[in-house]
This record gives sequence, structure tokens and C-alpha cells, in this order.
Amino acid sequence: MSAEILCIGTELLLGNITNGNARWLAEQLAALGVPHHRQGVVGDNRERLIQAVREAAGRCRLLITTGGLGPTPDDLTTEAMAEAFGVPLVEHPQIWAEIQARISARGRACAPSNRRQAFLPQGARVLPNPTGTAPGIIWSPDPTGLPFALQPGFTVLTFPGVPSEMQAMWAATAAPWLREAGLAAGVFASRLLRFWGVAESSLAEQMADLLALDNPTVAPYAGAGEVKLRLTARAGSTAEAQLLLAPVEAEIRSRTGAACFGADADSLASVVLEQLRQRGETLAVAESCTGGGLGAALVAVPGASEVFLGGVIAYANSVKQQQLGVPAALLESHGAVSDPVALAMAEGARRATGATWGVAVTGIAGPGGGSGAKPVGLVHIAIAGPDGSSSEAVHFSASRGRTWIQTLTVGEVLNRLRLQLR
Amino acid sequence: MSAEILCIGTELLLGNITNGNARWLAEQLAALGVPHHRQGVVGDNRERLIQAVREAAGRCRLLITTGGLGPTPDDLTTEAMAEAFGVPLVEHPQIWAEIQARISARGRACAPSNRRQAFLPQGARVLPNPTGTAPGIIWSPDPTGLPFALQPGFTVLTFPGVPSEMQAMWAATAAPWLREAGLAAGVFASRLLRFWGVAESSLAEQMADLLALDNPTVAPYAGAGEVKLRLTARAGSTAEAQLLLAPVEAEIRSRTGAACFGADADSLASVVLEQLRQRGETLAVAESCTGGGLGAALVAVPGASEVFLGGVIAYANSVKQQQLGVPAALLESHGAVSDPVALAMAEGARRATGATWGVAVTGIAGPGGGSGAKPVGLVHIAIAGPDGSSSEAVHFSASRGRTWIQTLTVGEVLNRLRLQLR
Repeated sequence: MSAEILCIGTELLLGNITNGNARWLAEQLAALGVPHHRQGVVGDNRERLIQAVREAAGRCRLLITTGGLGPTPDDLTTEAMAEAFGVPLVEHPQIWAEIQARISARGRACAPSNRRQAFLPQGARVLPNPTGTAPGIIWSPDPTGLPFALQPGFTVLTFPGVPSEMQAMWAATAAPWLREAGLAAGVFASRLLRFWGVAESSLAEQMADLLALDNPTVAPYAGAGEVKLRLTARAGSTAEAQLLLAPVEAEIRSRTGAACFGADADSLASVVLEQLRQRGETLAVAESCTGGGLGAALVAVPGASEVFLGGVIAYANSVKQQQLGVPAALLESHGAVSDPVALAMAEGARRATGATWGVAVTGIAGPGGGSGAKPVGLVHIAIAGPDGSSSEAVHFSASRGRTWIQTLTVGEVLNRLRLQLR
Repeated sequence: MSAEILCIGTELLLGNITNGNARWLAEQLAALGVPHHRQGVVGDNRERLIQAVREAAGRCRLLITTGGLGPTPDDLTTEAMAEAFGVPLVEHPQIWAEIQARISARGRACAPSNRRQAFLPQGARVLPNPTGTAPGIIWSPDPTGLPFALQPGFTVLTFPGVPSEMQAMWAATAAPWLREAGLAAGVFASRLLRFWGVAESSLAEQMADLLALDNPTVAPYAGAGEVKLRLTARAGSTAEAQLLLAPVEAEIRSRTGAACFGADADSLASVVLEQLRQRGETLAVAESCTGGGLGAALVAVPGASEVFLGGVIAYANSVKQQQLGVPAALLESHGAVSDPVALAMAEGARRATGATWGVAVTGIAGPGGGSGAKPVGLVHIAIAGPDGSSSEAVHFSASRGRTWIQTLTVGEVLNRLRLQLR
């Protein structure tokens, strides 16, 4: 029993996009304990797609494909599957009705090409797509009479290339099906610990002994400012796997202290909102160089409105003065990117909204606007609260560009507030 | 003549890392005009690696591998290559001397395992690694006497998995070699046209004849609300390729009119900012359900400060009243998610900042807070300008979740302003 992943799309062969779907699916297979020995990519080309599918059918028990399920002529996956295993396509009126309903619910006209998506290979089951128009299939083609060999029980699952649709379909139908079919051998449980303010290399050195463990395994990942450790345990049951994870998580937390801000689906924003919710306090922001990114990170969390009141995007100095009450003299003497202005912004946000806490950022995200004294990547972060306010300068590397600096700034502000609220 | 990429490493099959190397190499091949039809991934497993290499040798002229060149026992690429094509490994004393020199220059002791890296398949040329210890190979194995078929002239190039080393080796040796060997046939040029407010399926139908073209090819992609058409032309020179692209782009633009908002690196935000810059006008925002996401999209564009003044994140009703002057009576009688409140917010943003244009959004991003009359996904978008103001309700599908609704809302606001400014 082994699985292969085949991603379909010329955009992958042209290097237009990174194959994040293959990684996501590989993680899911690992979590379910399904051995996975091979991945492939082919373009939107009927012959090469059929060839790749037939080759995989001779090697693996389970073939998972992504891409090529859309309504356009270069979406060939479903047709190629039928042709690869010598069966006709059959229309499913129920799928067509659902596609029409979904498209009209969006207030759009249904194109005749959408009807193609209601045709599946004869004998294939529908793999429902709860969030998009293109369903996939779960299909074990009949090997009788085929001029090539199939692995016993060979089954193909097709998914669209849109990551959110593929992931929803996997969670709703494919993963339960794998468990019921007994293809998920053993149970993997994993835990993702999240860190801010520590470099991946130094975290890895601090954890060198744990990174060498066999079960659970511990693997580091770096993101935009955030570093993660993924713990993965394998056992006969979820409860047993959790028992293997717990002491290693405890050991990591005791070594890293406050640098570990959360686990799994936590974000810095969700952790800060939860801290404030428990204290019965509220938050407002004053953003210059992030232009609203801090607020957007907060409102990405469902239920943010219990805690987050809003604030001011004070990109221009005039807005800093009029909406936040930053004195013109302060702007003139210290410049907009300075601790006194950051402090006045944070206090202004608190005063203007009546929030318990006001946080402010003002900095130089680049690529222009830097100087010797105030280079690109310099950001001042201020926090104003019931017991006073403070501001500090942070220097981000300019080399990774504007968006990187803005993203790191948002994380850094949230992390500083988190540490202050602990 | 076609190329395949084979990436080697169990970490890819476990989903521990994303296969950025495949994308990078795919881009390089496209830029050199080398047709590239297939990618594969296998783990650090000798038999499966040999099998994958032999299969590729029967299909392609050029096989490019990454990974498995390091000094540890699970680095199997070089040995597997020799075994796949039935030749012994031969030590290259010069490589061993270079490895020792490089490692001692780093102040480290040379491990006996490093010596493995000096052994290459008999007949293979060295592909030098200017920044690391592991060299690769350029090798056209002798097909004589092999029990399987090779494509005529089959050549394999091996690279380490460390992206910076692979990229340096590509630039220094592989790319020039491809050109000298005449494998880089012509060049590709591409153009990405961007659309808002049109579904992928209806755009594809409108372009059905163009999607069938051979050179340039035209392929549609869907993103979060945005739809793209990628035009790719192949020719003897970049200038010729551009000449092939131009008439097809013109035809697409004439068919789609205002729905095509830009090309290549354009975003809705960058286009709107450029429109306003040319008019010498300024912009402010008032955001409720997007919480700052609209401002963040604007300041992601370098130089946004020439046009974008800032605004108010009016998440709580109290902030709508105090910072934007939305009358309490309006909030009570119509509710926060309504055209009158959206209008008052847009006008308030304009008044508070002195901007030429004020845009506002207020809506229900979910998952909670919806009702029969005002369901999740309902957003009111208002634009206030020098000649008055207007507001409209937009219904996004609730099924794709909070972040999706927030992202689509930001795009929709920017697109409406763009159309009004045309």
C-alpha cells in the first residue's frame, strides 16, 4: 500500500507557481500514516497526463491528483482519467443542478462550459466540493481487459488545484474515506508549537537532542518572522500518540519560556485577543507604515469585535495630527518616525476610541524614504495602557523588502503587547 | 528535446518542506526556452531513485536532479546514478582536495564521510559547486549494453538540494552549458493579464478561440476574486516573442474592456493609486469588516504615500460615531451594515482627512453576526468624491469563510473606485 501525488498544470511546469498542494497533501498523508513514495507534475497535456496516470496505476495503490478540474478546455483531468482506463464519461444531473445553483447564488450566469464539470468517468463516485463548482472523483477503475497492469485495488482521488477547495474536500471526504477503507495505517498525531523572537538556527541548536528523536519526531520550520516546531508521534491510537507528544512539548516549553506563543491554529493576534478578552479589556491601533495591516491581522480572528474597537490609519502626518492629536511640534522636532510620535499616536488611539490599550507603529518600510539616521527597516513601536506608555525602536533588515518589513512589524507589535499582557 | 526535473529527498515526501527548487528550475528552463514536460519527487531510497532515473532516461533528453549529494548515508544520488547506468564510481583527487580546503577554511574538521563526495560515476564531468562542498555532475551515460532504452543524447545534471548552492551552480555552469550545447532553443516571453469582476469560466468562453492558440499560448487562472490570463510566446529572441504577444494582448483587451485592470505586477491597489496620482488626487478609507485590510493593500504598493492619506478602522460603532461622525440615529435606524451608514463613513473619512476621495466598507464577515435580512457575506461599499457619493450592497458567498469575504471585499472596493476613476 503506497500513495502517489500527481499535480496537473502547465503553470507548474512554467514555474509560475510553487507546488504548495503537493506539500499540503504530503503532510496529510504523513499524518494519516499512509506511505507516500513518489510525486509527479505534468502539464495540461492529454497524452502525457494519460501516460503518467497509467504509470502510477502500475506502481501505487492510491493516486491523488490536483488540478485540471475546471470548466475550461485546458482542464483535462476527468476526461484523461476516463480515457486512461477506457470508460466513457457519464453525466450526473445532480452535480449539474448543484453547479447551476452555486453559480446563480453568486449572481453570475452559468456558462455552458460549466456543464463539463458534471461528467465523470463511468463507475466513479463523486468526491464532493463543498466550496467550489468542480467536484472530484473517488474511483477504482476496473482492470479487466486493460492492456496494462494496475496495482490491486488501485484507486484514484481527484481534487481541484485551488488550495482552499482541495483542503476542504480532503477534510470532509477524503481523509474519512482513507480511514474507513483501512488505508490509514496507524495514527499520527502532531502538534505545531509557534515561536516569535527567536531564530530558527538557534532554536534548532537549543533543541538538537530533541531533533534527533525518532518518535515523536521534532522538525523546525521558519516563516515570516515566526518559527515553528512540528512534533509528530506515531502510535496505535490517537490517545497513545498524544501521550508521546505531551512530555516533549513540555520539555520544549520549559526550555523556551515566553518565546513560545502558542500552538496549532493560534496566531499572535488570536493569542493577544484572548489575553484581552480574559482581562475584559479592549484594544485600538494607530498605524502608519503598516497602513492597516495590524488591524487586518486582528480582524482575521473570528470574534475580534469583542476586544478590538478599531483605530486610525495615520499614513499622512496630517492624519496623525487631526485624528490622533499628535502635536505638530513633535512631528517637526523629532520626525514622524520617532519614539515621541509613536507614543503620541498610541495615546491618541487610546484616547480617541476609549480602548484600554492603544498600540502604534510608525516606520520606514521602503524602498524609498530612508536616510543615514533613519534607514529603511527602522520602526518605532509604542504601547499605551492603563499604567502608562512606552516606545521602542526596532531595526528590521531592509534587504527583504517592503512587504516583509510590514509583515514583521505587525508580528512584532502583537508580540510586544502579548509579553506585556502576560 | 525536453527536460525533466527530479527532486530527491524524503523531507519532500513527508511534506516537511515546499519544493521551491522545482519552481526555480522550471522558471530557468522556461526563460531559456527548454521545453519541460514533467517533474518528479522521490525519497532517499536507492531502488526507487534508480527506477525513477531510468524511467526519465527513456522519456527526456535532459534530466535535472536536486538533492542527495551531501556526505551522509541517506545522500544516494551519485551512487544511484552510477548504478542506474551500470558504471563504477571513480575518485577525483582534485575534488577531495577542494572539499578539504573548503572545510578547513570554515575552521571545521573534515569528516571521512566528506570523501564520498569526491567519487563520481565513471565518465561524468564535474559540475562545480562554488559555494558548497558537494559538486554535481554533467553526464551522458553510454547506452551501449544497457537493458533499457535511453533517449538519444540523454544527459543528466545533478545539483544539491540547498537552494543557494543549486542556483549558483546553475548560473555559473549549467545555463552556459545549455546554451553552448544548443539545448536552449529560443526564448519564452510571457504576459499576465489581470481581471476583476468576471468569472474564470465566462472569460474562458469569451476567449475560446485564443485558448486554442499554439504560439502564443493563452491560459486562464483563478485566484481570490481575481482571474488571470497568461500569454506565453516562444521565438528566437525576446523581441520576436514580444511581437507575438502584442496582437493577442490587444485582442483580449478589446474583448474584455474595463474588466482587464492591469498586467504582470499590477494590482488593483497599484492601478487605483496610479489613477489618483495622475489626477493629483488623494484617498482615505473607513473600514469596518475589513479592519484595515484595504489600507494594508494600498500601502503594500511602494510610493502609496503620495496618494493615500490613511483613514479610520471603525470596527466598533463608537468609533464610527466619534472618528467619522456617523450619527447615532443612523446606526440605530438602519444598523451598522447599511447604505446610509456606509455613505456616512465614506463622507466622514473624506471630511476627517481632507482627501479627494473617501471609500468605506461595512459588512458581516462571519462566521457569527448574520441574520435573515443581513446574512454573512453582505457588505455595503460606499464611495464619496468631489461630485457626490454612492453606496451599494454586495453579497459574497458565506461558504468560503471570513478571510475570503474580507479579501474579496478589499478587491471589490478597489475595483469600484477604479471603474469610477476611469
